[in-house]
Amino acid sequence: MEKQISQAVIRRMPRYYRYLGELIDQGVERISSNELSQRMKVTASQIRQDLNNFGGFGQQGYGYNVKYLYSEIGKILGLDRQHNIIVIGAGNLGQALANYVNFEKRGFMITALFDVNPTLAGVSVRGIEIRMMDEIEDYIRNNKVDIAALTMPKTKAEECANRLVDLGIKAIWNFAHLDLELPDDVVVENVHLSDSLMQLSYNIVSRNHDEKK
Amino acid sequence: MEKQISQAVIRRMPRYYRYLGELIDQGVERISSNELSQRMKVTASQIRQDLNNFGGFGQQGYGYNVKYLYSEIGKILGLDRQHNIIVIGAGNLGQALANYVNFEKRGFMITALFDVNPTLAGVSVRGIEIRMMDEIEDYIRNNKVDIAALTMPKTKAEECANRLVDLGIKAIWNFAHLDLELPDDVVVENVHLSDSLMQLSYNIVSRNHDEKK
Repeated sequence: MEKQISQAVIRRMPRYYRYLGELIDQGVERISSNELSQRMKVTASQIRQDLNNFGGFGQQGYGYNVKYLYSEIGKILGLDRQHNIIVIGAGNLGQALANYVNFEKRGFMITALFDVNPTLAGVSVRGIEIRMMDEIEDYIRNNKVDIAALTMPKTKAEECANRLVDLGIKAIWNFAHLDLELPDDVVVENVHLSDSLMQLSYNIVSRNHDEKK
Repeated sequence: MEKQISQAVIRRMPRYYRYLGELIDQGVERISSNELSQRMKVTASQIRQDLNNFGGFGQQGYGYNVKYLYSEIGKILGLDRQHNIIVIGAGNLGQALANYVNFEKRGFMITALFDVNPTLAGVSVRGIEIRMMDEIEDYIRNNKVDIAALTMPKTKAEECANRLVDLGIKAIWNFAHLDLELPDDVVVENVHLSDSLMQLSYNIVSRNHDEKK
């Protein structure tokens, strides 16, 4: 069943999860798709369609039970289990990731950082040790690692990703600005900051065009 | 015209730009949509459709002139002009952004960082000065600022974004994990790292399901 769900739907699910979490914090117990639609600024029919991909969750005339829906979407997103992450590259970006406490709240635990810079050896970020790259084989052999985040320069990323895959890593969170070519059973999620900046720039330029009309 | 182009198409344009840049580096002068399709792993018809949104650029029997297409897509993405960026929040993430030299190659110049932490006052990152938040009004009044990048905690982001908009900022690159509610003429591009991690986690979990079948 999962295969048929488009990545566009999947992209929207974390946002539902975030809004439902806020509703719980506000003490809201149930919500109609219309109310959720107003808060999230998407149409009620999109909400219904998106959630119907996973079986619905709503009851006619009642709406959605907020806690139940939050918990079900959490399970769909795999947040009901722990994911251990290692971060390759302990520069500013790698250290920024290690400093995000919110990841842990959702079950994403950064367990180690790796770098090639010897001045970082043994340094800790929020209690997470920076190790040297030559320890990585041993580390992966002796620890459960679910995700590797790549924050090193583009020129090293492909080689590093291949090495990680050879060591058994099946999921890559890629911040390097290239598309990795990896076996089909390896899941890759890209965060291309330059692409994001170019989209912003497109929207700036096209807004200016519109204003001149 | 720009208004009719979907954000899905816009999301793909930076990737075309990146691949065309690599082709130029490799000395490739022209390319058919089929060849480009094989490299980029999208269908040739999607490439033709995407580019037709902007007028086409290809010639029957010749394909695309790589340099010309690169330059035209650059213009579409607003890369033919300079965009000045200020970064609010000079923690690891803000400093990571300041350290990206690749942004500058595309015309995105980070001109200042701002923070509230007095120990950062006067510190420079790659020659870019960290200023205190109480200087921001003066700074924006006296300097051209096109984009503000928000890297501060979620709890401060809404207030900060409103203040920036009051000061005339029209484009926000938002790394804080919330959806900003801002006037319609303000362009916002979100980088929600937690959402990205949840998408990765979904794909890990759904792959495991498939393997068990």
